Amino acid sequence: MSKLIRFGVSVDAELLEKFDDMNDKKGFGNRSEAIRDLIREKLVTEEWSQTDNETVGVFSIVYDHHQNEISQILNSLQHNYLDIIVSSTHIHIDHHNCLEVIILKGECHRIKAITNRLSAERGIKHGKLIMTSTGTALL
Amino acid sequence: MSKLIRFGVSVDAELLEKFDDMNDKKGFGNRSEAIRDLIREKLVTEEWSQTDNETVGVFSIVYDHHQNEISQILNSLQHNYLDIIVSSTHIHIDHHNCLEVIILKGECHRIKAITNRLSAERGIKHGKLIMTSTGTALL
Amino acid sequence: MSKLIRFGVSVDAELLEKFDDMNDKKGFGNRSEAIRDLIREKLVTEEWSQTDNETVGVFSIVYDHHQNEISQILNSLQHNYLDIIVSSTHIHIDHHNCLEVIILKGECHRIKAITNRLSAERGIKHGKLIMTSTGTALL
Amino acid sequence: MSKLIRFGVSVDAELLEKFDDMNDKKGFGNRSEAIRDLIREKLVTEEWSQTDNETVGVFSIVYDHHQNEISQILNSLQHNYLDIIVSSTHIHIDHHNCLEVIILKGECHRIKAITNRLSAERGIKHGKLIMTSTGTALL
Repeated sequence: MSKLIRFGVSVDAELLEKFDDMNDKKGFGNRSEAIRDLIREKLVTEEWSQTDNETVGVFSIVYDHHQNEISQILNSLQHNYLDIIVSSTHIHIDHHNCLEVIILKGECHRIKAITNRLSAERGIKHGKLIMTSTGTALL
Repeated sequence: MSKLIRFGVSVDAELLEKFDDMNDKKGFGNRSEAIRDLIREKLVTEEWSQTDNETVGVFSIVYDHHQNEISQILNSLQHNYLDIIVSSTHIHIDHHNCLEVIILKGECHRIKAITNRLSAERGIKHGKLIMTSTGTALL
Repeated sequence: MSKLIRFGVSVDAELLEKFDDMNDKKGFGNRSEAIRDLIREKLVTEEWSQTDNETVGVFSIVYDHHQNEISQILNSLQHNYLDIIVSSTHIHIDHHNCLEVIILKGECHRIKAITNRLSAERGIKHGKLIMTSTGTALL
Repeated sequence: MSKLIRFGVSVDAELLEKFDDMNDKKGFGNRSEAIRDLIREKLVTEEWSQTDNETVGVFSIVYDHHQNEISQILNSLQHNYLDIIVSSTHIHIDHHNCLEVIILKGECHRIKAITNRLSAERGIKHGKLIMTSTGTALL
């Protein structure tokens, strides 16, 4: 970690109060940690705004495996993107429902392409992508 | 899956055009599939609004493992919630950066408690929670 | 960890030499560590000899996902044992080959039943079970 | 899959009876499936006999995370081999015991090097490696 630089910020009292309240609930130790978190969050958004950036995504889907040979279809679709799929974890929630969590590393636009494709598959009940980061741009 | 019911919806033309454009980009086959997706999304939000509901979360964190014995701390913290942590997958991104993806199943408020606690840990560069679902309430 | 007890052992010189050579190659720091390892290994074997013991298994299979709707079949079979399958990780090795690693926790005889059943499935190229331990009996 | 070739084999009656009994218990459909399995097993052994072959390993360790900053050490060791470690799954078994399952893809001798190194770490209760295969040599 590089050295810490201290600087002043002016914020409207009411806004700051709301921000502090929220951070208290989330268990942040102090205001600086919370501000650092905001900055990192912004950098991650930036990382994803350039479509050919190399980044990391975590994609989760919930589905009923009795539907439409869906395990077979999901597996085949993923094999077309095997260079960007690191691993995929499957949890058998109950007799019907499956959770699948897919970890992806590659260009933003390709991560979006495969996750949009998987989400649109008939039988998927819920699909969500975390756009996270390789961490290299976040000090 | 239960039987499909067809019903009419009135939507402002301009709003519908934007909605269709967005769905085209995401690869949805038709408007009904996109509307079903919106309804399910709303039900998942509802599932998470009651703090003692049993649900499923996927939490991802990026960190530099050289910081502050952080692997040791993260592992110890998770052991206090072992009844709701199903599994945790670790990817070694580069010599410094780690991705950890934790799958949780349990009451909303406990999932939020442990993920807030982990996010606030010094050395965490990015933490994000997908609030997903056990799937049982989503037909 | 409980306190260490030191005791003497008599071993044939030639046998001991071979044992030491093997341990050097494996990077064991000293003979005691190597002997402790043997004892723990024996206890794990014992843990698996009683069919109704609660234990932990790690099962890996390699298969070609183009064969016989095999993803669909493997997923369905696993759902019949969802109370003992903790999670299952899938790696897309190449366009044809898949690695699936299933973590199981439950009675020995049920772990053996599902893993034998999965191994015998047409299309499985290689299946292997690690009989490991919950760790509670190993100090 | 390539075409099936049928050929005759002569086996001692008593040996064959034992082999059939074992296969019945394991749920193999017929003798051919069991023989194919033996041949594939032999090919996997061969794949691992050449130290620079590219192959796949699944390594499981059980440990008490309260010992010697062991989470920190295991994570650091693995980062030296990040090019061959695909992913690592962690299960919190109980307040003390952890199961970690590491999936490796790379040259045999490097897989053996890191898994021997991890096994020898003080605090590891049980470590086992499945030598499996990329599947490409197994039809």
